[in-house]
Amino acid sequence: MTSTIDDPTMTPVRAESMRRLFSPSRMALVGASEKNLFSRRAFQQYQRVGAGRELFLVNNRSAQVHGVDTVPTCTAITGGIDCAYLLTPQHATSAALTDAIEAGARAAIVLSQGWAEQGGEGVKRQQELVDQARAADVLLLGPNHLGFVNLWERIAACGLGLDLPVEPGHLALVSQSGAVASSLVGYASRQGVRFSYVITTGNEAMVTVADAVGYLAEDENTKAIAVFAETIRKPAVFREAARRAAELGKAIVILKAGSSELAAQTAAAHTGALVGDDKVIDAVLRQDGVIRVKSVEDLICTGALCAEIGPLRAEGVGVLSVSGGACDLLADRGQDLGITFPSLSARTSARLEEILPAYAHPQNPLDVTGGALANPDVWRKGIEAFADEPEIGLIGVVTSLPTAGEPQRDDTFRAVGETCAATGVPGVIFPQIDQVQSDYVNEVKVASGVQHVMPSVERFVLAAAGLTQWSGWLRARSGRTGVAGVAGAEALGSPARVRLPGQGGPLSEQDARAVMTAAGVPMVPAELVGSRAEAVSAAAALGGSVVLKMCSGEVAHKTELGGVELDLEGPEAVSAAYDRIVARATSAGVRLDGVLVSPMRRGGLELLVGVTRDAEWGQVLAVAFGGALVEVLQDSALRVLPVGADDVREMLTELRGHRLLGGFRGSAPVDEDRLVEVILAVAELAQALGDEIESVEVNPLRVSGDEIEALDALITR
Amino acid sequence: MTSTIDDPTMTPVRAESMRRLFSPSRMALVGASEKNLFSRRAFQQYQRVGAGRELFLVNNRSAQVHGVDTVPTCTAITGGIDCAYLLTPQHATSAALTDAIEAGARAAIVLSQGWAEQGGEGVKRQQELVDQARAADVLLLGPNHLGFVNLWERIAACGLGLDLPVEPGHLALVSQSGAVASSLVGYASRQGVRFSYVITTGNEAMVTVADAVGYLAEDENTKAIAVFAETIRKPAVFREAARRAAELGKAIVILKAGSSELAAQTAAAHTGALVGDDKVIDAVLRQDGVIRVKSVEDLICTGALCAEIGPLRAEGVGVLSVSGGACDLLADRGQDLGITFPSLSARTSARLEEILPAYAHPQNPLDVTGGALANPDVWRKGIEAFADEPEIGLIGVVTSLPTAGEPQRDDTFRAVGETCAATGVPGVIFPQIDQVQSDYVNEVKVASGVQHVMPSVERFVLAAAGLTQWSGWLRARSGRTGVAGVAGAEALGSPARVRLPGQGGPLSEQDARAVMTAAGVPMVPAELVGSRAEAVSAAAALGGSVVLKMCSGEVAHKTELGGVELDLEGPEAVSAAYDRIVARATSAGVRLDGVLVSPMRRGGLELLVGVTRDAEWGQVLAVAFGGALVEVLQDSALRVLPVGADDVREMLTELRGHRLLGGFRGSAPVDEDRLVEVILAVAELAQALGDEIESVEVNPLRVSGDEIEALDALITR
Repeated sequence: MTSTIDDPTMTPVRAESMRRLFSPSRMALVGASEKNLFSRRAFQQYQRVGAGRELFLVNNRSAQVHGVDTVPTCTAITGGIDCAYLLTPQHATSAALTDAIEAGARAAIVLSQGWAEQGGEGVKRQQELVDQARAADVLLLGPNHLGFVNLWERIAACGLGLDLPVEPGHLALVSQSGAVASSLVGYASRQGVRFSYVITTGNEAMVTVADAVGYLAEDENTKAIAVFAETIRKPAVFREAARRAAELGKAIVILKAGSSELAAQTAAAHTGALVGDDKVIDAVLRQDGVIRVKSVEDLICTGALCAEIGPLRAEGVGVLSVSGGACDLLADRGQDLGITFPSLSARTSARLEEILPAYAHPQNPLDVTGGALANPDVWRKGIEAFADEPEIGLIGVVTSLPTAGEPQRDDTFRAVGETCAATGVPGVIFPQIDQVQSDYVNEVKVASGVQHVMPSVERFVLAAAGLTQWSGWLRARSGRTGVAGVAGAEALGSPARVRLPGQGGPLSEQDARAVMTAAGVPMVPAELVGSRAEAVSAAAALGGSVVLKMCSGEVAHKTELGGVELDLEGPEAVSAAYDRIVARATSAGVRLDGVLVSPMRRGGLELLVGVTRDAEWGQVLAVAFGGALVEVLQDSALRVLPVGADDVREMLTELRGHRLLGGFRGSAPVDEDRLVEVILAVAELAQALGDEIESVEVNPLRVSGDEIEALDALITR
Repeated sequence: MTSTIDDPTMTPVRAESMRRLFSPSRMALVGASEKNLFSRRAFQQYQRVGAGRELFLVNNRSAQVHGVDTVPTCTAITGGIDCAYLLTPQHATSAALTDAIEAGARAAIVLSQGWAEQGGEGVKRQQELVDQARAADVLLLGPNHLGFVNLWERIAACGLGLDLPVEPGHLALVSQSGAVASSLVGYASRQGVRFSYVITTGNEAMVTVADAVGYLAEDENTKAIAVFAETIRKPAVFREAARRAAELGKAIVILKAGSSELAAQTAAAHTGALVGDDKVIDAVLRQDGVIRVKSVEDLICTGALCAEIGPLRAEGVGVLSVSGGACDLLADRGQDLGITFPSLSARTSARLEEILPAYAHPQNPLDVTGGALANPDVWRKGIEAFADEPEIGLIGVVTSLPTAGEPQRDDTFRAVGETCAATGVPGVIFPQIDQVQSDYVNEVKVASGVQHVMPSVERFVLAAAGLTQWSGWLRARSGRTGVAGVAGAEALGSPARVRLPGQGGPLSEQDARAVMTAAGVPMVPAELVGSRAEAVSAAAALGGSVVLKMCSGEVAHKTELGGVELDLEGPEAVSAAYDRIVARATSAGVRLDGVLVSPMRRGGLELLVGVTRDAEWGQVLAVAFGGALVEVLQDSALRVLPVGADDVREMLTELRGHRLLGGFRGSAPVDEDRLVEVILAVAELAQALGDEIESVEVNPLRVSGDEIEALDALITR
């Protein structure tokens, strides 16, 4: 983790502070008032969730609010408080906070707007509030948000809508936006989803999404965490929280909205163009096993599936459906989304044939045909057969949700609930098309022991794709040779510090070559020459066709200056090329270190391997196909450093052109072990150089069977 | 269109026959019975939709069914019938049909299962039923489906669920699957979507999806058509229907489920590997402007948006939202899905600044902030400003849907409805997260004149992507130089028939070269030589480095036999290569026509241009990047022939590597006009050869600035 003892924005909020905030004993609602919608709502929620802690209403004008006696100030509360929920407008917040602190509060929830979200003066006002809080060791949640609920302890300090489900559950929700959180809890209530916590973080003056995720990962009632975020303010804290959640087998599902500023890009290195901010975040999330979704509905549905089901024994999905159309749609969408529906063993097929009509085909997804509605044994025997397939870790059942007076559908639920419980393979029921989950469905679900009910085929496939891929990632994680997440940095053996020659600007190719070679990157041979005659004799010594390149610390992209001459044969060609390069350098006003003479290489594949710095997430490794095609095809894979061999191997498989490495139309397969070593050498060099460099890049890295050789190298700082 | 007078499966059902089926005067429900769920449902639907036509219940055992007097047979109906809805089981269908025909029926709806869907004998039984019907000029709908409803004429002959909305609307729904149709109409009713027709086609013994779409395109109450299909049985009829719908400005939205067999592939031509069945269908749908969706929910939501809004004046979308989070999500998803949110002119920004809080930013999507709920003028002025932007053709408004007792949200609806009507730019309201459309919302919508309400941001972006892209396609269509759809085949000037030399098997490269050259495809020079000496002298005449290639009608892929020798310079190299090629041909048992000598080309880009035959859709043109990388990168674009210049130009822009053609890192831009001509020449040659060939392929077509030259050609038959 970045060392940031002095920078409170980069360290996690301490667990005991978070505990004081989210599980206070005595709370004050400051600014309570009949006229204030948020006051009414906060008090109603307090009552709805069960009034788990003592609450005092603070109002210095009315003796009673919401039917309860008030106190004029926090300091007037006998016995004091430990947390204050400030509904006061922005201008009255500081005074209210002072009062709350005097009354003993060590945590405060600040609802108001008018802070950093308005820019300029607002940023300053917010900083002053934080300074005031920090001086008194008080933790602030917000401002500009809608508070939180802690449902297992029946604590509410929030302005969320009254459709918030009050029965506690196992999904925690963290949202930067209060408005989005309100939509999310309303949708959750319509889908039978229950929460352990809902936390809105707003402007994140002190408590960020990363802090909340870290806290919730340790909460025993929370089995999965859903996150809506527009920015991730403490990247290292977030990654550590993700690591911990993985360790505990809890999934994090995120909807990351809005493109923030592009990562600081390096004009001098082509790698820069591959590293858009969102691509880096995407890479980090993949590295850390965080499930990324694209819609608010999927955030709730995928989060709830993960919370109810947890890690799977296997990544395959088995589906039984009353509708053949749904089977086709599942198969199509499953293929789009990377879900595996394992094909059935002969034994399972035989068992299924016994329960299906003669014309039906035993396959996965399985059309059980309409007969299953009349005969729940079809569900029971079908699920038992599927559960015996070791590659199936999750069972989906497509059927309409029951309404009162449809005993057939209740029977289906019972059959699914009982059989899944008996076999130990989790089962989920969902209808073909979006349906709201009625109270009746919830009752039948609970009574039948069905683990989870989802709104539709579409939501199921999207959520199951996330759950199965995460389960696979979690299993692979334990067996990895390299590192996953921040903590494993040591696994690389903390590369020793490397010093660069000269100072500032790009290194000349000759200098970059020396650094790369020392780091274990195989470079194409090259001789630096200072005259036409030396060039000719170097070329003769190499034999065959050669390449001449301008060598200067003043030029990052020599091709653009005409500084590269390819495929030269014979003394005349070499002499003429040498002269041209020198002339071009002169006319461009470039101070030459000399001219490099290298053998001409042909054939094979070209890769780009580069490391650049992302302002938020640190050094990012990019591996891409293509030489000159890099920028066009954008066939690249990214990882935040550090990485291990398995990460690099995984990057290679993510490339669309990966098959090319396995040998193509008669070319020899590339030695992937060696290729991984070379890529790791570049990554480790970049780490060793650390802040001293902007970027390290090998482009192209030529690979052809077991020949792996860097044809050019660039180091910028 | 394929000439298939003798093949009734390839001709469209005549409009007057369809009219007899879907708008009969007197219908019989044959097999009506209290005990039969489908009978009860059919009768209830008949009553629910308004009993627009006379209906007789046929039962030979009970004098009354569903409270109505029955007749024992159709022939017992005084005055006869013109359409029969047969609920009889499979084994009793033929007799029931005979009775119906005798009573005058010229159309019949066959509900039962037990036909072609069960294979084997079932296929035979279905054919017998069709023969019986055809002999009496009777049109059959089904079997194995759930009938149809015609809502404007209040005619129902269906087994769809009783949540089918009975008020007529402008979206027609066609579904092969009855079960899926049932789900779809239930969802539609929850989302306030209304239908003109719902038609299920089942096994499509006579009436296919293509026939239904063609019929509905001409229906004046139908403004858009939603289709759920697993196969498209009459490709040419479907394309003609799509052409007609486009002509009338009616969108077709399709959910194509299930992957049918891969298109008949040509092992001898690499193009084959690019032409999977689903890719061809995807290309056809794009060519014909059919909007393809991926989920059942989107089928309804996109269909309904198109039906209510119709073609747009411009493809840009303007959004006003009470939630900043929704703006971010819209921008993110819009980018994923190809929606344009035009940026605002300075004038519009200034107008918006007047109505927004000081800290808010005028942009699109626009966060109007919570203030708009209290002040509907924000909506009015905001929409007026957006409507003055000529690039905006559709306005979206994000706000929660109203419930009774929330007058603020009613005001929002009124402001949106009135302002959109006044400006003439259509407006759609939708909440941030999935919500069902209550009866109250429907009332408010109608009262306020809001054109359309959708369930969520996510459904809106998916539907708006379809509508805007279709609107753009429709506009471009009128100005195209080439052809769109089947009817325009003449536009190419019906290429004259070309005869190929020899018979059967692939052509030798020399023969293929001659055919290509005659067709206007520029081929690299080549001389066919029959001896070492001829090879040497041909090489000397060309000068520089040469290529030698095995030439034989017995070899399609000469590289695999070692039949290509590259980069040969000097008599010795040429002689040796000649000998090696002859030796390899001999040892492989290949009869040589000779050896081709061509100049060696370097640099530039390589394309593949090929035409293969798809069993369903006919000749398919593929354009791809890559030489040897073709199969790995799969960067290809497909079109069904015939195509025009604009189609080919569009194909080039679909390639990921398209930017390369514009010149890359100093290389000259490719002459795209010339490239299009050459690709069209290949396409026209394939059309002219017609059934005589299996495939025509140029691979690689080398392009470098204005040099465009085919380096190899393959014609197989």
